[in-house]
Amino acid sequence: MTDKQIIYLDNAASTPVIEEVIDEMIPYLGNLFGNPSSVHQFGRKSKLAIQRSRKKVADLIGANPNEIFFTSGGTESDNLALKGLSKFYRDKDKDKNHIITSVMEHDAILETCRELESDGFDVTYLEVGREGLVNPETIKRFLSKRTILVSIMLVNNEVGTVQPVRKLAEITHEYNKNIIFHTDAVQGVGKIPIDINNLNVDSLSISSHKINGPKGVGALYVRNEIGFKPLIHGGGQEYGLRSGTENVHGIIGFGKACEISLKNLKKNCDFLTNLRNYLIEKILSEVSGSRLNGSVAKRIPSNTNFTFFGINGEDLIIKLDEYGILASTGSACSINKKRASHVLKAMGLDHEEISGSVRFSIGIQNTKEELDKTIEILVKRVEELREISPFKSKYSL
Amino acid sequence: MTDKQIIYLDNAASTPVIEEVIDEMIPYLGNLFGNPSSVHQFGRKSKLAIQRSRKKVADLIGANPNEIFFTSGGTESDNLALKGLSKFYRDKDKDKNHIITSVMEHDAILETCRELESDGFDVTYLEVGREGLVNPETIKRFLSKRTILVSIMLVNNEVGTVQPVRKLAEITHEYNKNIIFHTDAVQGVGKIPIDINNLNVDSLSISSHKINGPKGVGALYVRNEIGFKPLIHGGGQEYGLRSGTENVHGIIGFGKACEISLKNLKKNCDFLTNLRNYLIEKILSEVSGSRLNGSVAKRIPSNTNFTFFGINGEDLIIKLDEYGILASTGSACSINKKRASHVLKAMGLDHEEISGSVRFSIGIQNTKEELDKTIEILVKRVEELREISPFKSKYSL
Repeated sequence: MTDKQIIYLDNAASTPVIEEVIDEMIPYLGNLFGNPSSVHQFGRKSKLAIQRSRKKVADLIGANPNEIFFTSGGTESDNLALKGLSKFYRDKDKDKNHIITSVMEHDAILETCRELESDGFDVTYLEVGREGLVNPETIKRFLSKRTILVSIMLVNNEVGTVQPVRKLAEITHEYNKNIIFHTDAVQGVGKIPIDINNLNVDSLSISSHKINGPKGVGALYVRNEIGFKPLIHGGGQEYGLRSGTENVHGIIGFGKACEISLKNLKKNCDFLTNLRNYLIEKILSEVSGSRLNGSVAKRIPSNTNFTFFGINGEDLIIKLDEYGILASTGSACSINKKRASHVLKAMGLDHEEISGSVRFSIGIQNTKEELDKTIEILVKRVEELREISPFKSKYSL
Repeated sequence: MTDKQIIYLDNAASTPVIEEVIDEMIPYLGNLFGNPSSVHQFGRKSKLAIQRSRKKVADLIGANPNEIFFTSGGTESDNLALKGLSKFYRDKDKDKNHIITSVMEHDAILETCRELESDGFDVTYLEVGREGLVNPETIKRFLSKRTILVSIMLVNNEVGTVQPVRKLAEITHEYNKNIIFHTDAVQGVGKIPIDINNLNVDSLSISSHKINGPKGVGALYVRNEIGFKPLIHGGGQEYGLRSGTENVHGIIGFGKACEISLKNLKKNCDFLTNLRNYLIEKILSEVSGSRLNGSVAKRIPSNTNFTFFGINGEDLIIKLDEYGILASTGSACSINKKRASHVLKAMGLDHEEISGSVRFSIGIQNTKEELDKTIEILVKRVEELREISPFKSKYSL
């Protein structure tokens, strides 16, 4: 691990940057500082480096490099996709103003949809079942002549559910091949194989810092035939669709992280799956009154999310933190809003089930020994908290 | 200089990152990779570091830290200011739909204004004189009950003109104190002293990579009493006004660059002014058929912009590049659009004057010896190009 005695199990929030990635970035913080738009050799070097990175990002998802647009991160990518695509096609046909998404999405999608509603768009939020899955049949009821865009996340950030995106995209395109299918793949990239042609999606968001790359950079994939409006106007960088001097060192690091991620995909996937299964099995058997939230089968290799009955998840996080174990209650981002998980609520969990929930998200740097240590500490901390819990008698612990 | 035998004179396009700045950033690419929204110690460390940086950025311009919003760069800051402020106040009062700017602005402002026009806003573009200055009296004619926002850049990126922002803001606020005055200060920060209270502006854009900080980060200052709409929606970072996981290492580097910039402001200002005056004097005396573009008196210390009659500026840039001298023809960003400088055109220069123009922008890493070498090479290259110029006889060179 990166810090002595610290066990970092919050890899869904952010991941340590791989050393090789940092090594690739450093020269672009040093001598190679040219503005990619400058005509001279420093500018050309930066520009070429960006194009090499673009290819690496494209390769990870089976896209063409000219379908990749660099952004400041996953959230901007989602905003650019939803606002950029919806407004572009509504400008062409005023009657097209309908968007379909799900109640399980990240706030980068949900808050953007709310903004689009205030701008006259009509948004349908698909419900999910107890496992957090969108039923592909449901979407048929809502597709209409007015529908511009469907946006369903590939992998949920809190419970790791892998949505049936391929099936959803297929149904959408069967209904009308011109409806655009976007997927927020921020939590899926690098964890499961992703090919945009296989998934049949038209647009896809990626974030660098979720795949052991630097923060402050991400990308939006948009299929060649599809148009969109820029979110940020100016000097005309990124083929005129995302202005602003490029975050060169960030883009270089992101590209390297994508290259490594693709190379190690199978290995990482197996490694994480083993650790995850071990952690789930051990926690469910060793911590009484614990339950796994979300789908068991349709789950990314890196995610676990439990409810520990009779305690408050935030209290547990703080206790674990004191013992050097870093985990979280659902989405890191939701902290800013100080509200209960909309994801677990959407899955039908009640208040108590939600308040006792904790996410342990595993990363490529974790070890089995770390998980053993985690379980050992976890068992004791849960006991301690239950001793002072008002629900103590209820769960007869 | 950063590279052997290379003389970098394109500091208005981008600047080398100061080593101390890189040193501060590295730990945040390494062990300190926590998501600032995470509750645990890694998250808290990142969050605290961001708050320390916010203070440093605020100090550089005399603002309160809670008036600083981190963005992905100057272009996003300008977009956030213009779109965010205009739409916020139009939402409150539909009759308010008028924006005033100038023809001299960077494309981050001009293209955003064009987008706002397509969204129903009415934009007035103030003309400038031969020196590139907005006449403060002009603005009086255009201020109206419908005016929401005035946006005039502090320093022009191509010719370095320092606009009478204080006077313009004063006239604007005298007309109606509720009209918001924004200034794109990207090219001014770190070159001249900037205090938002002295300038009397309500909103101001800064970019990190123009002041020897990293690319991919910038900030928008917005006065406390003023509201604006987010451009990027999601997890609610930056007080709910700019969502997306923070570019932690970038923000740390930016903060450090601001701290250093403030500490060295007087020294850098004197140093750059001396070099600039030396370069101007030498070029005008040693290169026949050369002229300085823009104001002589109202000019930032780092900018020079010349027309070399009878030659094409781009040809000269390419020639100089071969000899290791890196300069540019106006804005790096305008390269993406492959069009003549709108700034020089606005100042009334004709096609020939514009096409012969070259910008040498000086940085804190440059030396007098580099300028001597530059002039020596420049004299010969201009001669060479004039030998093959179709205007050869016209200028009897």
